[in-house]
Amino acid sequence: MLMSRMLIPTLREDPKEAEVISHKLMLRAGMIRKLAAGVYTFLPMGFRVFKKVEQIVREEMDRAGAQEVLMPALLPAELWRETGRWDLYGKELFRIKDRHDREFCLGPTHEEIITDLVRNTISSYNQLPVNLYQIQTKFRDEVRPRFGLMRGREFCMKDAYSFHATEECLEKEYQNMYQTYCRIFDRIGLEYKVVEADSGAIGGGYSQEFMVVAESGEEPIYFCDSCAYCASRDAAGIGKYVVPEAGGIGELRKMGERGDGVKKVKTPGQKTIEEVSAFLNMTPQKMIKTLIYETEKGPVAALVRGDHEINEAKLKKVLGVENLKLAAEKDVVSLTGATVGFAGPVKLSKVKIVADHAVLLIDDGITGANENDYHIVGVVYGRDYKADLVADIRFAGESDQCPRCAKGKLQVKRGIEVGHIFKLGQKYSEKMQARFSDEKNVDRTFIMGCYGIGIGRTAAAAIEQKHDIDGIIWPASIAPYQVAIIPVNFEEAEQRAAAEKIYHDLQAAGIEVVLDDRLARIGMKLKDIDLIGFPLKIIVGPKGLKEGKVECKSRATGEIKLIAVAEVLKYVRDFCDFIGK
Amino acid sequence: MLMSRMLIPTLREDPKEAEVISHKLMLRAGMIRKLAAGVYTFLPMGFRVFKKVEQIVREEMDRAGAQEVLMPALLPAELWRETGRWDLYGKELFRIKDRHDREFCLGPTHEEIITDLVRNTISSYNQLPVNLYQIQTKFRDEVRPRFGLMRGREFCMKDAYSFHATEECLEKEYQNMYQTYCRIFDRIGLEYKVVEADSGAIGGGYSQEFMVVAESGEEPIYFCDSCAYCASRDAAGIGKYVVPEAGGIGELRKMGERGDGVKKVKTPGQKTIEEVSAFLNMTPQKMIKTLIYETEKGPVAALVRGDHEINEAKLKKVLGVENLKLAAEKDVVSLTGATVGFAGPVKLSKVKIVADHAVLLIDDGITGANENDYHIVGVVYGRDYKADLVADIRFAGESDQCPRCAKGKLQVKRGIEVGHIFKLGQKYSEKMQARFSDEKNVDRTFIMGCYGIGIGRTAAAAIEQKHDIDGIIWPASIAPYQVAIIPVNFEEAEQRAAAEKIYHDLQAAGIEVVLDDRLARIGMKLKDIDLIGFPLKIIVGPKGLKEGKVECKSRATGEIKLIAVAEVLKYVRDFCDFIGK
Repeated sequence: MLMSRMLIPTLREDPKEAEVISHKLMLRAGMIRKLAAGVYTFLPMGFRVFKKVEQIVREEMDRAGAQEVLMPALLPAELWRETGRWDLYGKELFRIKDRHDREFCLGPTHEEIITDLVRNTISSYNQLPVNLYQIQTKFRDEVRPRFGLMRGREFCMKDAYSFHATEECLEKEYQNMYQTYCRIFDRIGLEYKVVEADSGAIGGGYSQEFMVVAESGEEPIYFCDSCAYCASRDAAGIGKYVVPEAGGIGELRKMGERGDGVKKVKTPGQKTIEEVSAFLNMTPQKMIKTLIYETEKGPVAALVRGDHEINEAKLKKVLGVENLKLAAEKDVVSLTGATVGFAGPVKLSKVKIVADHAVLLIDDGITGANENDYHIVGVVYGRDYKADLVADIRFAGESDQCPRCAKGKLQVKRGIEVGHIFKLGQKYSEKMQARFSDEKNVDRTFIMGCYGIGIGRTAAAAIEQKHDIDGIIWPASIAPYQVAIIPVNFEEAEQRAAAEKIYHDLQAAGIEVVLDDRLARIGMKLKDIDLIGFPLKIIVGPKGLKEGKVECKSRATGEIKLIAVAEVLKYVRDFCDFIGK
Repeated sequence: MLMSRMLIPTLREDPKEAEVISHKLMLRAGMIRKLAAGVYTFLPMGFRVFKKVEQIVREEMDRAGAQEVLMPALLPAELWRETGRWDLYGKELFRIKDRHDREFCLGPTHEEIITDLVRNTISSYNQLPVNLYQIQTKFRDEVRPRFGLMRGREFCMKDAYSFHATEECLEKEYQNMYQTYCRIFDRIGLEYKVVEADSGAIGGGYSQEFMVVAESGEEPIYFCDSCAYCASRDAAGIGKYVVPEAGGIGELRKMGERGDGVKKVKTPGQKTIEEVSAFLNMTPQKMIKTLIYETEKGPVAALVRGDHEINEAKLKKVLGVENLKLAAEKDVVSLTGATVGFAGPVKLSKVKIVADHAVLLIDDGITGANENDYHIVGVVYGRDYKADLVADIRFAGESDQCPRCAKGKLQVKRGIEVGHIFKLGQKYSEKMQARFSDEKNVDRTFIMGCYGIGIGRTAAAAIEQKHDIDGIIWPASIAPYQVAIIPVNFEEAEQRAAAEKIYHDLQAAGIEVVLDDRLARIGMKLKDIDLIGFPLKIIVGPKGLKEGKVECKSRATGEIKLIAVAEVLKYVRDFCDFIGK
């Protein structure tokens, strides 16, 4: 393709509307344009990238045995009412009435629609399992659409839904999808992590997120430096604590081996961990942070080390409660005898005490005295207080032990969610009475899984991971074109002839190539070419041509080779093979 | 692909909801399912057909030099207000408000959006021309959605928009698109006609419709049996009338050559052509039908032969008026002196008279006497009345002269519109002030063309054109798979082995093939296979296998060949080449 004939409206300056690098670069490289908040048009270069991501996803889904379908965007309210999501979904759902005042929404996801389809078309176990997918436009009226293709209100997703007779069958397909997603992101050439995650509004049971690693990532990823363990901040566990046997350490202390005892100290107005540790000139690691919560099973005091943070998701899980919130000031007073900031586990009798493993290992701890303006020091677990429950209730941090393997330590990077796989179980099929007959002719409810990938989001995440000061560095798999030929001066006959020869040779060999035939200065042309991020540049200039050579430069490594015009096709073929085209 | 693993919910009976054959067959063949009125899901078989149509369209658009983009469905009201279409479009436009109460519509077409994009990204004549296309989902809240994919409320279109500095440049691209559309429908393998058409709500200037010929077509197509002339019913002209010179025939008659004169006859209560001609025992060809119209330029009497029908579109054009409607009863009385049904051109002085060419040739005409319950007979043009204007103002009919060539006669077939190409001119760019700088740095308004193809509609039209009592007969170009292998009994080891060998051979050769591995009776399997319409069936049965042969049967011709198992791949390759795969 000739650059002069393509609509590539590049920009010199970062557009004001863009906050993140992928958004800036896609706008600057003339790949997308905003139509309204969170609503974008793909221009020719951006659309090529979009199509390539889509095609890789499609090929791998087909290879995995999934069948492609296409569901509408305009979805009748009735089906959404069957699962209760018509009311639950709130303002994020675009709602619309047709000319007969019938209610519809613009589909943000398609569980209801596919479940309705399957209950109407599959009646017997011997038609199962089935995995149906589509690559289709979704609509979500985000509170704050931003980051370009990262969080749009209209965006393209690959969403797949599998239906099974048994849990074992779901497990098998879930693993199949896991492997398929790995193949997809491997083929695109992205560094990614698979994270155990909360399944949010969609999910019933277990789910995992595929996160592309990037400094600008929206969420931290906790992963083991030794095994494959990887989890979100909420879910990341902490492994291998040497927990003392019941009362172990306490007993030792009680026996006076260290000789130090509890001492009450005045800490007037010092409430936070920072204030108290500074006031007493101690590290926060010595503090036993004590927070009082209300739950439907009664009040709870949760203890973590002063430098740790309570993970309420974990706390809810270990307590087996649905509702958990910090107790109101007056309740804290009546439960502990002091205002907020002076609670501690010693002689705390009216509440259940849950301690994090790390708390048990604190020597000479400091904690609230349950009396205003007082803390106590020299506190030892077992001797001075006991917990009703000892568990992992804090957020993991860098260098914590991996909860899965014996030797690893956790590391933290940031990531961008590009895929999510769920075991839905019967969450939707039960509500929608979607049933099939089993071998014994007994009606059973479908067991479901669902599997999503954001198409535009994946392209944007690739940019977040791979770019430099000059622009985008596309992985070859999804680059709009593999090669750009840039004559220094296209009006100069010799350069033009050489450039056109190479252009036609590469085209004839089926290589995706652009020829920068614009009548502009070489500096300006190279700026555009680097901004757009073609993997290989071929610069045709007078100096090289004297020896019949052109300059081949890799966008990713910057490596330059001088290649004879007659050898360029071979060089490009090797380059494309090498970068995995 | 194995039939047993695919979601193909075929139906034995015609579904009640379906009126036309393509809708019936797509439902019965398990290709689509209705989600709401005019809103359909494509199942795997239907989706494959859809994708193939899409891909042919894409390849030919790319070959023509158009660039693919993707615009959103969610379109801000502001742009639609700039052209006035926000108000003009009425209830067909799905309107929606976001959470901030901002108004959007779901795009039924994208002229405003592309014009906005181009005015923001193209500033100079040297960036022109450009032709941008997308294959994208459209929304129209039809009064009466029906006929399955033929008239849906959510449907997929390829829409292209070209921008030019000059009319000549638009003309060139228009012809390029004309040729591209011909290539597309030729490649798909459809019989079609290109019809000059009214451009309706979208268009400014000239437009042509691509119509697939089918008995069930929604509209008649008038085409010449000799030249390429082809037009819609509204536009079809009538050629080569031997119009007498001014007063020619009349003068002869006046001279009494035939001896007959005007005679008034009583026709009590006989008002219509049918009533009068029956009452007087004359053919309608003798009648001069006289209709009184109101226009902004005053009243008009339009005359056509009794068996012809006035074409109001033509009448408006020859009169040069915008508004034309039949006069109210009271106005007819005041203008003609009689109630409706008794008007005639003789001694009619208060209105302008426009006569169709054919009226001048009527011998001894019959017409209203402008007096209640009376007609006059023996009326001759020129002697008894004259027209202010003689023109082509009627609908063409079968065997009328072609208006373009010297020798052809018009024929009529029915057609389904699948494509439409328009010269828009400056209709949108002017209202939206979309301008570029020309060579002299003067601001000029873009000149535009636009070009649409319905993707699902084309698939449906193919069925309307090609089917039989057993089901669909897909053109090979868009068949979901080229070949179906059907073992008579898949549980029988020899048949199974032969079927699987052929299946793997064909797959390895890149041929699209399904293996009907279902444990069902052969009759039932063949019914499904014929219903779905695979171009080639390979039936693997015990009788043939005794001689090492299988039966290869063409869906289109019914021709059967017995082919040795080892020769099947070669046969299939030849078959696919032959049918133009």
